[in-house]
Amino acid sequence: MPFDTIHEGNLKDYLLSIPNLFPAGADLVIKEIGDGNINFVYHVQDQDSKQSAVVKQAKPYLRSSGKDRKLTTDRIRIESEVMALEGDFCPEQVPKIYHQDLDRSLFVMEDLSDHQIMRKGLIERNRYPYFPEHIGFFMAHTLYKTSDFALDAKLKKEMQARFMNPEMCEITEKLVFTVPYYDDGTTSYTPGAEEQGRALFDDEPLKYEVAALKESFLTKAQALIHGDLHTGSLFVTADSTKAIDQEFSFYGPMGFDVGAVIGNLVLNYAAQEYHSRNEQERNEYRTYLLETIRDVWLVFAREFTRLWEEDNQEITARAEGYKENYLDRLFKDSLGFAGCKMIRRIGRAQVEDFTSIADDNIRAKAERLALRLGKDIILQRHQFQSIEEAVELIEETTPRVS
Amino acid sequence: MPFDTIHEGNLKDYLLSIPNLFPAGADLVIKEIGDGNINFVYHVQDQDSKQSAVVKQAKPYLRSSGKDRKLTTDRIRIESEVMALEGDFCPEQVPKIYHQDLDRSLFVMEDLSDHQIMRKGLIERNRYPYFPEHIGFFMAHTLYKTSDFALDAKLKKEMQARFMNPEMCEITEKLVFTVPYYDDGTTSYTPGAEEQGRALFDDEPLKYEVAALKESFLTKAQALIHGDLHTGSLFVTADSTKAIDQEFSFYGPMGFDVGAVIGNLVLNYAAQEYHSRNEQERNEYRTYLLETIRDVWLVFAREFTRLWEEDNQEITARAEGYKENYLDRLFKDSLGFAGCKMIRRIGRAQVEDFTSIADDNIRAKAERLALRLGKDIILQRHQFQSIEEAVELIEETTPRVS
Repeated sequence: MPFDTIHEGNLKDYLLSIPNLFPAGADLVIKEIGDGNINFVYHVQDQDSKQSAVVKQAKPYLRSSGKDRKLTTDRIRIESEVMALEGDFCPEQVPKIYHQDLDRSLFVMEDLSDHQIMRKGLIERNRYPYFPEHIGFFMAHTLYKTSDFALDAKLKKEMQARFMNPEMCEITEKLVFTVPYYDDGTTSYTPGAEEQGRALFDDEPLKYEVAALKESFLTKAQALIHGDLHTGSLFVTADSTKAIDQEFSFYGPMGFDVGAVIGNLVLNYAAQEYHSRNEQERNEYRTYLLETIRDVWLVFAREFTRLWEEDNQEITARAEGYKENYLDRLFKDSLGFAGCKMIRRIGRAQVEDFTSIADDNIRAKAERLALRLGKDIILQRHQFQSIEEAVELIEETTPRVS
Repeated sequence: MPFDTIHEGNLKDYLLSIPNLFPAGADLVIKEIGDGNINFVYHVQDQDSKQSAVVKQAKPYLRSSGKDRKLTTDRIRIESEVMALEGDFCPEQVPKIYHQDLDRSLFVMEDLSDHQIMRKGLIERNRYPYFPEHIGFFMAHTLYKTSDFALDAKLKKEMQARFMNPEMCEITEKLVFTVPYYDDGTTSYTPGAEEQGRALFDDEPLKYEVAALKESFLTKAQALIHGDLHTGSLFVTADSTKAIDQEFSFYGPMGFDVGAVIGNLVLNYAAQEYHSRNEQERNEYRTYLLETIRDVWLVFAREFTRLWEEDNQEITARAEGYKENYLDRLFKDSLGFAGCKMIRRIGRAQVEDFTSIADDNIRAKAERLALRLGKDIILQRHQFQSIEEAVELIEETTPRVS
């Protein structure tokens, strides 16, 4: 096979060999832009037409850990297929795919250089007034339309087998649900948050809840979930939202996606205390974040309900009260996963919301707040009747953490 | 391929062509013994050595409905592979497999002619004192050992994909969870049980519970379940129990198997009122059945707990109280599915426990009792703390149904 191994050196020739991608003989400039720790990502631009694209390539190992940490390249198939599928449901919310080459473990997609990673945007205190509508719509449509409510049960099971994704799931299973709660000797904490981080090892009520949430992640095949929908997997502008990095996608609990969005907004909420220059600015941005959290859930629930009412293939779902009960369970799942997604960022797998805080004391305080909020959300979610009550908990807990 | 299509006419030559199955030139006598509505089953015996075996063959359609009702022959792969796997865990509780031929959609297994189908044995009021130990052990081992508690998560997901079994699941989804509750115009009832059967169409509290149970069946991939473990899938003698007919097997909720056993014992309990010759005999056999139900659960829970405590790979399962909570949920799932398995036998898919009752009035009363018990078990299970309370409900409800 020509272009046996694609690398920066032969990528240009490879791309020019693909019909209908770039004009013949285009003057392509290629730049490696991958900031993740898993794959290689290249930005490609034709200097004449200014037409551009992004190439994402998987190697059979985890980029950040070198060749010894094997990782299936099947993740590229899953990512590109899920992205295409989500594009059918929500064309505005995912990059377009131009080309897929599974033999070479790569695909070529729309260039989103005019967008910003949402996590960075939140650190800069940007506001995204359309974000709740966009992400609520995206989650409702991708989750509902791949569930047993929308799909024939046989087709759903075929898709479930096609996106089983054991190796990527294993990463989440370990890092989100296990490592923060069971001392394997590898976790190091920000000085000042260590006591709180290590206290999780003995927090039996929390570990009990997390065990049940992990059980859901392992067994609850509700929908084809994104599987890694944190603010680092979202590209945004003032009026656009795009979900990327679908490589963790599999049939799992819907609440894991909703919780990822909510949890990462709360993480930023915790960190903003220190990013914001003064109390008024901080309070205002926090209010914005809490409104965003509320609206994300409300839009999601509204759209999900609308889809259910418009077209639910599952006749048993018509039973009186079942829809309300389903949404209530989904709400509590979402909050539980939100808490897990927050807690896993204390210790290992730090996020820029915290690492960008230069002052260690302030950073530690932000992490302590995030950890406390994550924990309280997990433990108290069973009592919540509405998203407003969760938001209230966040507001009331904040001044109590010193 | 020689023996392109296997049928009664060429089966003898086919079997003799298989090395190490029967002696060369053996005088084989073949008898079709399939009483199910899905497959063809042949009993084969060498007239000289008396050595015997059973051949199970799938056609690409449902036997009882003719060639127009297509059904995947992949069910033979699933049945023989699951039987072999269960044989590794519980060699005493499944037939031995002698030969598998997926090209011809058949396999050859141990002849269990010395055993009796348990449903028939219960109708004859036979007693099986070892049955709770056998079936409790079988369910605990097959369910626990294929779950995330015993298997590496990646291996579990591979097995889940291998046994996705969409076509067979669809039959259960429709017949157990949908048809009894939603009038599709196809259900006919025993005269005298029609009113009660049709009342299910408007029983919203019950439909609400059944919707949630169907959701579990569709989404809860806990273990490789048998999937059809009623008393017609169990071969018994006074001191032996063998599970057959694994063609419905897939990764589903554990409680579906436990519930199938319990529910079918309760069905027989309902029918025994009329099979038994006098009140004392009836009461004694009923007491035996209720003790059996209790012991099936207790042995299952004891063995499941023992396996969990001896070797649980899932570290999060160590959280305080989680094991007890898991077993409690499994208990309530089992009772819910038990009720569904009972109710689905009223109307369509009748079982011999009822069809063998010659007197229509008596048969209708038996069916009304079964339906009432199934319904009460589903609705009241959330309150039960122990199997004894479920047994008590059955005892208390019985005289109230006239």
